Amino acid sequence: MNRDDYYTLLSFPSISSHPAHKKDVEACADWIFHYLKKHAVPVEKWTSEAPPVIFSSLMADPSKPTLLLYGHYDVQPVEPLDEWISPPFTPTERNGEIYARGAQDNKGQLFYTLQALIQLKNPPINIKLLVEGEEEIGSPHLPFILKTHQEKLKADYLAIVDVGMFDKKTPAITLGARGIITFTVEFEGTKGDLHSGTHGGVVYNPLRALVECLSKLHDPLTGRVQVPGFYDDVHEERMPNLPFDEHAYLLTFGAPPTGGEKGYTPAERAGLRPTLEINGISGGYAGTGFKTVIPAKATAKLSCRLVPHQNPQDIAEKVATYLTTLAPPGIKIHVDIHSGGGEAVRANPHSPLVKAFTSAYQEIFGTPPVHLYEGGSIPITATLAKLTGAEPLLVGLGLNDDNIHAPNEHFSSDRIEKGTQSLLLAIQYLATFP
Amino acid sequence: MNRDDYYTLLSFPSISSHPAHKKDVEACADWIFHYLKKHAVPVEKWTSEAPPVIFSSLMADPSKPTLLLYGHYDVQPVEPLDEWISPPFTPTERNGEIYARGAQDNKGQLFYTLQALIQLKNPPINIKLLVEGEEEIGSPHLPFILKTHQEKLKADYLAIVDVGMFDKKTPAITLGARGIITFTVEFEGTKGDLHSGTHGGVVYNPLRALVECLSKLHDPLTGRVQVPGFYDDVHEERMPNLPFDEHAYLLTFGAPPTGGEKGYTPAERAGLRPTLEINGISGGYAGTGFKTVIPAKATAKLSCRLVPHQNPQDIAEKVATYLTTLAPPGIKIHVDIHSGGGEAVRANPHSPLVKAFTSAYQEIFGTPPVHLYEGGSIPITATLAKLTGAEPLLVGLGLNDDNIHAPNEHFSSDRIEKGTQSLLLAIQYLATFP
Repeated sequence: MNRDDYYTLLSFPSISSHPAHKKDVEACADWIFHYLKKHAVPVEKWTSEAPPVIFSSLMADPSKPTLLLYGHYDVQPVEPLDEWISPPFTPTERNGEIYARGAQDNKGQLFYTLQALIQLKNPPINIKLLVEGEEEIGSPHLPFILKTHQEKLKADYLAIVDVGMFDKKTPAITLGARGIITFTVEFEGTKGDLHSGTHGGVVYNPLRALVECLSKLHDPLTGRVQVPGFYDDVHEERMPNLPFDEHAYLLTFGAPPTGGEKGYTPAERAGLRPTLEINGISGGYAGTGFKTVIPAKATAKLSCRLVPHQNPQDIAEKVATYLTTLAPPGIKIHVDIHSGGGEAVRANPHSPLVKAFTSAYQEIFGTPPVHLYEGGSIPITATLAKLTGAEPLLVGLGLNDDNIHAPNEHFSSDRIEKGTQSLLLAIQYLATFP
Repeated sequence: MNRDDYYTLLSFPSISSHPAHKKDVEACADWIFHYLKKHAVPVEKWTSEAPPVIFSSLMADPSKPTLLLYGHYDVQPVEPLDEWISPPFTPTERNGEIYARGAQDNKGQLFYTLQALIQLKNPPINIKLLVEGEEEIGSPHLPFILKTHQEKLKADYLAIVDVGMFDKKTPAITLGARGIITFTVEFEGTKGDLHSGTHGGVVYNPLRALVECLSKLHDPLTGRVQVPGFYDDVHEERMPNLPFDEHAYLLTFGAPPTGGEKGYTPAERAGLRPTLEINGISGGYAGTGFKTVIPAKATAKLSCRLVPHQNPQDIAEKVATYLTTLAPPGIKIHVDIHSGGGEAVRANPHSPLVKAFTSAYQEIFGTPPVHLYEGGSIPITATLAKLTGAEPLLVGLGLNDDNIHAPNEHFSSDRIEKGTQSLLLAIQYLATFP
């Protein structure tokens, strides 16, 4: 691979959740557009008020099947910045791994997808590529943009190149991904912050209200979400028992897998069960020293991971209703349901697409891929599958310890090479299947 | 009063809890030192690694009683900065009130104390003044500094000029103040932040542990603190029924007085009952947009207000023990008990000091002062009373809506004038009592 190009792609702080990075997001899209153009790959840039969308189409023969590849060029925020060993937008190699925000998710996997397209001089089937810039905020505008280009996007197969392997030696194909919906919950007390001496014991502290209400989200014994109706549409599923090394998990992440619902394996809890997580809490004084304050308000950010048949909007409303009924006297609870949620997605395990990636990964890694269910969400997957009429599948070469969405994210040049080769092989195999 | 001098005093960002403001704290002390010197008041500056202490002594006659006045020149942090209408260290007058951090607590009350000393050419009794610069962080070094000057500090009476009136028309003398102890509680999960898709439902989220553990601090029905042994040393006390206007409280602060223990009036809950408050929570992502993270750790800042007979260290250890036993599997809880706590304090209601301030306030305001019990804490009061052998009392002209410790703190020039006059009068009265 050309390391300079990969490093350039990683150097754009294309953080989609911060309006301040709008120009960086656009500059990153421009770079991808010109990069494909320079290598003679047909390319379009679809601009709007949202981050630009990059689209390529390499048509072999209209009678042949069409594979649509998907990636994204936006990245997660980088806080806490002081935990990065090297700056997040200055790619740095240590022990064969390249460290940067987006090194894996998704710029690393996107970069090997771009390499495959560049090397694919005479594609045996039709290949399309869609690269977006607002995946990390749930692709709120993308469905509308795609609708205006629906004709161009038609495909038989859809490969979301944004997930991972089972472990360093074992490739995987991912037959499902959870959906997602996110909220901000505000606990409002007094008009302004108060002195906790003068008013402590007099007013209801919004931080107390917050911990009391949020503590009722989960059953303390079973770990089940206690929002009424949360599991109404969930179909009971179990997973073939893949080995799960609890000790290795503890060593890698520093804590045992003790969260989630009792009675399910860690893999089932990540792949087949819905969750309600607290992703952030802020309120009162959190700086150096101490401040004896009763804050006027406190805020929590929550998200649900969803499984098939759960509707994001319906779940959101159930959570909002439950929380607002829990408000103690003197506290007002406001729930803001964010746009950009998405349904869970499931692939057809008997599809030629699954067979093609199975064969390709087996050949490159020397071992057959296992079947996984992704705990994360790529909300646009369900939308894209519906809009294009394609059978979806999630593939990729991420590893659990790549630190995606966290400080010191990394990926390797070895996986960049194998990623390119396995995509080229999968395309060859897909051409040979009926 | 000289408004320029008051404004200059308010302009120092003497925030004792931020090490970054060490120089500002020292500059503020220097200004007070030179201000008293310029006005021919004998003054000393006691320097150490802690904020400087300012001490004055106006000796009339060793056979006469000695009154020690106390104030502080350090202030609380100013966050959230965006809620200040005018900058916190640029004093600004609006509708007769002067807005600035410290305008009341305690620089405003200190300023009228300084005026009284300057005007007191021939004191009828011995007057001493002690002004410290680390009250807002619990005066951690002051006891050690005072011990080395114990001989100079001897007094019969101690007036802490740092509290308030009953309402705009009714002065008050404060017969008690609650003690305080503060903690930082850390909930530690994994080594680093994790993706809430991949790991949601697998690991125990430290934010979930935080809300679940902190929700057990109070009984949801009675509002009582549930830490075992918390009330062991609390003597049951009730208060004469002062009028408390719940509607006025709601109008002033924007929330009803629904916190604290059931079965006690708001005044009793503030003055005679101990509390455990959450003063800050931080963890996960709290910025613009959303980040689907399971944070590695989450932190809460807690404080207890204490009543007579409760020992700060004993209570701290009970809270720490209780919290650490609540840790769910996979989460480590660390409690850091801060230094600088202090016991509650109670005055003798029959003391000449009480009579002197009662007469002075009655004369200045035309109405007799009511007796209050301060919910806040001036931890050094108990220490000072013990060290000097003096009878303590808490006085001052603060009002509930001065926004101390909050954005838009304010005080008035009218109260500066009345403060000076009432201190001068109280000193005269104290000279006439046996």
